[in-house]
Amino acid sequence: MPNPSGKVLSEGKTKIVRETERSDVVLLEFKDSITALDGEKKDILRGKAVINSHISAYLLELLEKNGVPTHIIEFIEPNMMRVKKLNMIPVEVVCRNIAAGHFVKNFPVAEGTPLNPPVVEFYLKDDARHDPMLNEDHFLVLGLASREEVKKIKGLTLKTNKVLSKDLKAKGLILVDFKIEVGRGTGGKIYVGDEINADSMRLREVGTNRILDKDVYRKGGSMEEVLNTYVQLYEKILGKKPPIGGTQSG
Amino acid sequence: MPNPSGKVLSEGKTKIVRETERSDVVLLEFKDSITALDGEKKDILRGKAVINSHISAYLLELLEKNGVPTHIIEFIEPNMMRVKKLNMIPVEVVCRNIAAGHFVKNFPVAEGTPLNPPVVEFYLKDDARHDPMLNEDHFLVLGLASREEVKKIKGLTLKTNKVLSKDLKAKGLILVDFKIEVGRGTGGKIYVGDEINADSMRLREVGTNRILDKDVYRKGGSMEEVLNTYVQLYEKILGKKPPIGGTQSG
Repeated sequence: MPNPSGKVLSEGKTKIVRETERSDVVLLEFKDSITALDGEKKDILRGKAVINSHISAYLLELLEKNGVPTHIIEFIEPNMMRVKKLNMIPVEVVCRNIAAGHFVKNFPVAEGTPLNPPVVEFYLKDDARHDPMLNEDHFLVLGLASREEVKKIKGLTLKTNKVLSKDLKAKGLILVDFKIEVGRGTGGKIYVGDEINADSMRLREVGTNRILDKDVYRKGGSMEEVLNTYVQLYEKILGKKPPIGGTQSG
Repeated sequence: MPNPSGKVLSEGKTKIVRETERSDVVLLEFKDSITALDGEKKDILRGKAVINSHISAYLLELLEKNGVPTHIIEFIEPNMMRVKKLNMIPVEVVCRNIAAGHFVKNFPVAEGTPLNPPVVEFYLKDDARHDPMLNEDHFLVLGLASREEVKKIKGLTLKTNKVLSKDLKAKGLILVDFKIEVGRGTGGKIYVGDEINADSMRLREVGTNRILDKDVYRKGGSMEEVLNTYVQLYEKILGKKPPIGGTQSG
């Protein structure tokens, strides 16, 4: 595995952001850590960095090809992405096709209910306040984005939903919901940033309805079950076995 | 005090809804009960029914005069309103001019910060789920209202804010935030329903910034202080003393 030498700009729960030789480009290095419940639950899952970085790169490139601007420039084996440096908007954008997770806790709707049209939700990234939900007015008064940008972000999210749902369905996967993060690139243009993988999507296997995402971890599955889930998702999306021998990053 | 004889259609924490001789008209009888914290805190405040019903009738009539459709038909001494029977949308609509209450708990904004433009928020009326916040997409998937109705409700709320703020400011009161409820009348037209008074507005006295609303009760003020607050608010808004001798309802 290459030893990235760029200065660390920031380090999150699952990724390290490093400087590159270009001021408008950064390197995202995926980590093997897995977390849930606002970071209260934490583990190391060997191989996750490789799996999640591959899946993210594949899905971001898929979005690009379908007209959704994303930050990806190129995937770098085994667990890195060169990406446009964005000025991130500190918001999680959630899109739901089927009721699950927080939605069924918060609203009188049974788990598994199809949501038509899909629901887009915004949450402020603020662990101390448990990521409060935002409406469109909040973006303005919190100085997060203009009305026009919020409309743009919502449009990009719904387009992302269409592109991902179609590709995943062809691979036997139902996209229940997903989370993206967005930021401003040069000229203020909005791009889809961050990552898209089993940590940020809820997926069910067509036919069996088996869970193929981080919910296996959230619900207390063994680390073997969790790794098995991530491996299977990789195989379904990429159509090959993940390259996780004894070389994955720690 | 008249003894209303119409059949009770429903009874809430602070009001009784009674049938009238007309199927499209109901009688709202205000009660002296005061509650907070999802109904966990409860008391009887003698005189509140008279004060709150008067203030509500005055403010609803003020809205009507300024082009905001409301349910009010007439005030009936000492504590009742004849109103259009509405098919209520089970949502609380909150409008905020200055950061306070839940807003400062949920977001990184200091109490007292002016919010420009004013923020409109929607909360599902669901005590068991602690009234979760709704965004515009939720209205559709929960079957609460169409996109067009949500836009209409938001417009009525902002107009209500302008009309109330202007009248109250002329009386030495700052409208910090308020809550309204809306419903559909004949032909599906959206009306402002329910009540508008010290239970549903946050008000500060111009100059002193003294609290003149239910926050005095929420924050543990004595029942004497609470009654004094409601009486002062009545005097400021109606320009006379409230008729609360020994005859108010229990």
